[in-house]
Amino acid sequence: MRDFLPADVRRREYVIGVIKEVYERYGFEPLETPAVENIETLLGKYGEEGNQLIFKILKRGVHESTGEADLALRYDLTVPLARVVAEYRDKLPRFFKRYQIQPVWRADRPARGRFREFYQCDVDVLGSHSMVVEAEICAAAGEALSKLGFSDFVIRLNHRQVLSGVLQAAGIPAEKHDATLIALDKLDKIGRAGVRQEFLERAVEDQPGERLLDFFGELNSLEHAAAIAEGDEPEKKQAALNAAILGRLIEFLGSNETGAGGVEELRLILSHASALGIAARIRIEPSLARGLSYYTGAILEIAVPDLAGSLGGGGRYDNLVGMFLGEDVPACGFSLGLERIIVVMTEREMFPPDLVSSAADVMVTIWNENSVGESIALSQELRSAGLRVDLYPDADKVGKQFKYASARGIRFVAVLGDDERARGEVAIKEMTSGEQRNVKRHEVADAIRVGLKRE
Amino acid sequence: MRDFLPADVRRREYVIGVIKEVYERYGFEPLETPAVENIETLLGKYGEEGNQLIFKILKRGVHESTGEADLALRYDLTVPLARVVAEYRDKLPRFFKRYQIQPVWRADRPARGRFREFYQCDVDVLGSHSMVVEAEICAAAGEALSKLGFSDFVIRLNHRQVLSGVLQAAGIPAEKHDATLIALDKLDKIGRAGVRQEFLERAVEDQPGERLLDFFGELNSLEHAAAIAEGDEPEKKQAALNAAILGRLIEFLGSNETGAGGVEELRLILSHASALGIAARIRIEPSLARGLSYYTGAILEIAVPDLAGSLGGGGRYDNLVGMFLGEDVPACGFSLGLERIIVVMTEREMFPPDLVSSAADVMVTIWNENSVGESIALSQELRSAGLRVDLYPDADKVGKQFKYASARGIRFVAVLGDDERARGEVAIKEMTSGEQRNVKRHEVADAIRVGLKRE
Repeated sequence: MRDFLPADVRRREYVIGVIKEVYERYGFEPLETPAVENIETLLGKYGEEGNQLIFKILKRGVHESTGEADLALRYDLTVPLARVVAEYRDKLPRFFKRYQIQPVWRADRPARGRFREFYQCDVDVLGSHSMVVEAEICAAAGEALSKLGFSDFVIRLNHRQVLSGVLQAAGIPAEKHDATLIALDKLDKIGRAGVRQEFLERAVEDQPGERLLDFFGELNSLEHAAAIAEGDEPEKKQAALNAAILGRLIEFLGSNETGAGGVEELRLILSHASALGIAARIRIEPSLARGLSYYTGAILEIAVPDLAGSLGGGGRYDNLVGMFLGEDVPACGFSLGLERIIVVMTEREMFPPDLVSSAADVMVTIWNENSVGESIALSQELRSAGLRVDLYPDADKVGKQFKYASARGIRFVAVLGDDERARGEVAIKEMTSGEQRNVKRHEVADAIRVGLKRE
Repeated sequence: MRDFLPADVRRREYVIGVIKEVYERYGFEPLETPAVENIETLLGKYGEEGNQLIFKILKRGVHESTGEADLALRYDLTVPLARVVAEYRDKLPRFFKRYQIQPVWRADRPARGRFREFYQCDVDVLGSHSMVVEAEICAAAGEALSKLGFSDFVIRLNHRQVLSGVLQAAGIPAEKHDATLIALDKLDKIGRAGVRQEFLERAVEDQPGERLLDFFGELNSLEHAAAIAEGDEPEKKQAALNAAILGRLIEFLGSNETGAGGVEELRLILSHASALGIAARIRIEPSLARGLSYYTGAILEIAVPDLAGSLGGGGRYDNLVGMFLGEDVPACGFSLGLERIIVVMTEREMFPPDLVSSAADVMVTIWNENSVGESIALSQELRSAGLRVDLYPDADKVGKQFKYASARGIRFVAVLGDDERARGEVAIKEMTSGEQRNVKRHEVADAIRVGLKRE
């Protein structure tokens, strides 16, 4: 876990500010939940591996010595949301569109862009089965990234029912679906031979396994064909590729109704995404599974070329609220990872150059012990004028005070020397140029404001 | 611990925003530290009672069954700051002025304005012995409260050395100082007889105990005398009272140098506070102790009449960083309690009436399945124009959609019916008045913006 010094905090707040602004324009409202949940709320929601990554909190008082844990640190923002929706059902609107930007904790091994404390930026819509929801979530997350300056991200889209249908159509028995998907998910990394080996280890039968590998190999070649077909606009090219993939899926699925229902929803999402102007970003990716866990419909992931893993992911999870409420509530959401966004933005130098980088607009010096009061009063006047003002706290040598301001990147220093005070003036030094000039006391704020606007 | 639904979050963000803006104008920079600290960092810093209120986190993996805790939840923002200053000494400026607004956790019994998860809003200056620091911290915290609309708060000010000096001058032996102060701290609540009883129980000797009770009784009557002296401006009245109290302290302290040094620092703080325009708020309060813990100089507390306990507190703690660094760094800070501020502001109805209270500026309806795309496109156009737009996700009956918008407090609803679409228009309904009119499609954003500005 990390400390964030001032420059780090400013970069984080900039990113959070952009994301919030976009999410609010899409009609999402803010929610915050406590860092700590009852341990039963979290256990059993994230799979076996997830259970082990939960930070557990000891019971207090006399129970402490038992080693028993009754609370745990928030592991994601989705399960707390499901709990909130179950708990406050009557207070919430029929469609609850919320965003939530808060830290979560996982006892994971740290890696690039992966930390034990990290922020998730979630949007979710609860209460609607409409595919408008999936499309708006893609548009909102995509617009947030665009506003941050990302121009090369891809929204990968798949569907839980399509995955199930494809596996059924290939002849994989239901009890082998999870094992098969875990192996297939690695196709990109370990290649066909590697997946074949995994199928063997996981006792996935030869024939259906080969059928799947053939099918996904063929989809890949569709993609390559699209990539080399030049001359088209990216949007048209992407639309043609998506249509081709959906067509092949329909063929492969044959009479499989589960799969066909999934394809129909994917088509609707693409159509709505087109109306939202985000369709060129979306790529149908029939092997995308994202660990499956609680997804029941669409599965989403956003990736950029220079980051292994994703900038965020999500999907539809119509059954999760039911685990708390005893009655299902349709739900779909997406989570952007703040730290990964910041890692990529830092490496690509995407932060705006005018992001506040100094502690203050101006530093007021203290000339000597007799003039402390006047320096204090000046700093207060400048603050009232809206400037960010640092007051050097001691009557040190003025050279030392200048040096301090310079080291902190403060652009202007105001000096109330004996001569200046006698004339009702203040000396203002611009630290980068070294230029110094005297202005009337009541004109200091304006002079600095004008100076700050100059390059 | 509590969930914050959208309206709660907006109120919290409003208060945090005001406090941040003020602190930044005083030259404070943001810092954030992890929610979780190594348990050794926290243990032994908050006294015996504090140790028991720390939430402790179980070791992960195979160690989990041992019941051993190696991490703990942040208990305040001051100890993590001291750790940060020790850890990043070389990266930080000589005077480190930081603000930090983050949650802390205490396994305490909840009460009015007291929760197990709560936010502290801290400002601290590290690296300076100057009393300018104490005065600026009073001014910054005071201005934050003023900007939030508080007009009746008092900044109570005392000094650790004055407390020590008074106890020494009264003849209390050093080993009885803590016990004496714990009893004296209750003078307001349990009266003279009650404190006398406590002295007896805590084996504080009769004679010095009576001397103290006489002295504090006399100071109280000074205050009453000031309260009934009418006709003066509040600032002058407060200054006269503070001067009278300091005068009596000097008399009582006699030749006690510890106490005299403290009085001198209090005088300096008052003088700087006067230059900052905050002196009328400050009341010298010679019995204020705030649990003592790590304070070495000034002790501060802000109170309002209608809240038992304080809105915040702080002081100088020159030895805390030394516990991490092995070398002392002078430090002084103040912590405002977000939840207590919000409790009082809610009861007094101090939140601005125009605080965003609806999910969106406008809701776009969906007329029928054929027009979904057009409704989506319209909502996206309005978002591009900067409006907060909610899109109803289904082609429900329009009356149902109106009802939904109304229940959510959304002021405008845009309808793209068959007639409107045929004419290239959009119907806009103002939900409060029920007025409905048609405008050209490209004029919708402007019409709503104008409408939002009207009362």
